[in-house]
Amino acid sequence: MVNYSPDPLDRVFAALTDPTRRALIARLGEADSMTVSDLARPLTMSLPAVMKHLDVLENAGLIARQKTGRTVACRLTAAPMEDAMAWLTRYARFWDESLDRLAAMVERPL
Amino acid sequence: MVNYSPDPLDRVFAALTDPTRRALIARLGEADSMTVSDLARPLTMSLPAVMKHLDVLENAGLIARQKTGRTVACRLTAAPMEDAMAWLTRYARFWDESLDRLAAMVERPL
Repeated sequence: MVNYSPDPLDRVFAALTDPTRRALIARLGEADSMTVSDLARPLTMSLPAVMKHLDVLENAGLIARQKTGRTVACRLTAAPMEDAMAWLTRYARFWDESLDRLAAMVERPL
Repeated sequence: MVNYSPDPLDRVFAALTDPTRRALIARLGEADSMTVSDLARPLTMSLPAVMKHLDVLENAGLIARQKTGRTVACRLTAAPMEDAMAWLTRYARFWDESLDRLAAMVERPL
């Protein structure tokens, strides 16, 4: 499950292939940090299964975990996601209208 | 190897996990379309192996193939890549400076 490929982009895209992992990222995007218990609570899977998904996200550099006493807090880390976006954007430049639509999307207010 | 997951994003990100497939996309980004033979020529793998990678890209909707006589031409299709960018952009909004940097990158001339 954990991908030790030498190319960081392999690991980032592999981490994003799973809807549970994308949902974890989405939830982490709503707060500065969340505990593993908070992240696991709404999911219909075991805590060890959640931990495995968090391992994949951490291995890809998409999240960082910090242990304080018995609590583990997770937060998003932006750099690898930016590398993935930079890769996608590079090829979007060659396609009709893609760039204009991306720019409009980026500039649209939340 | 081919992923029949119901979520198109699963297939797009899975297709992007492999450096050979990213290289195929990069080369297709340099031309309107390329034949399978042209795509395969510089690669140190068999034609069937290249065809399998093209199957994964086509299954993810990232390329389209068109047969004319004995020649198969491949071209990039933009929509699924845009969905992947939209997903990444959505969460980039929550991170420090990510959005500004993406906007600067998008607006930078080629």
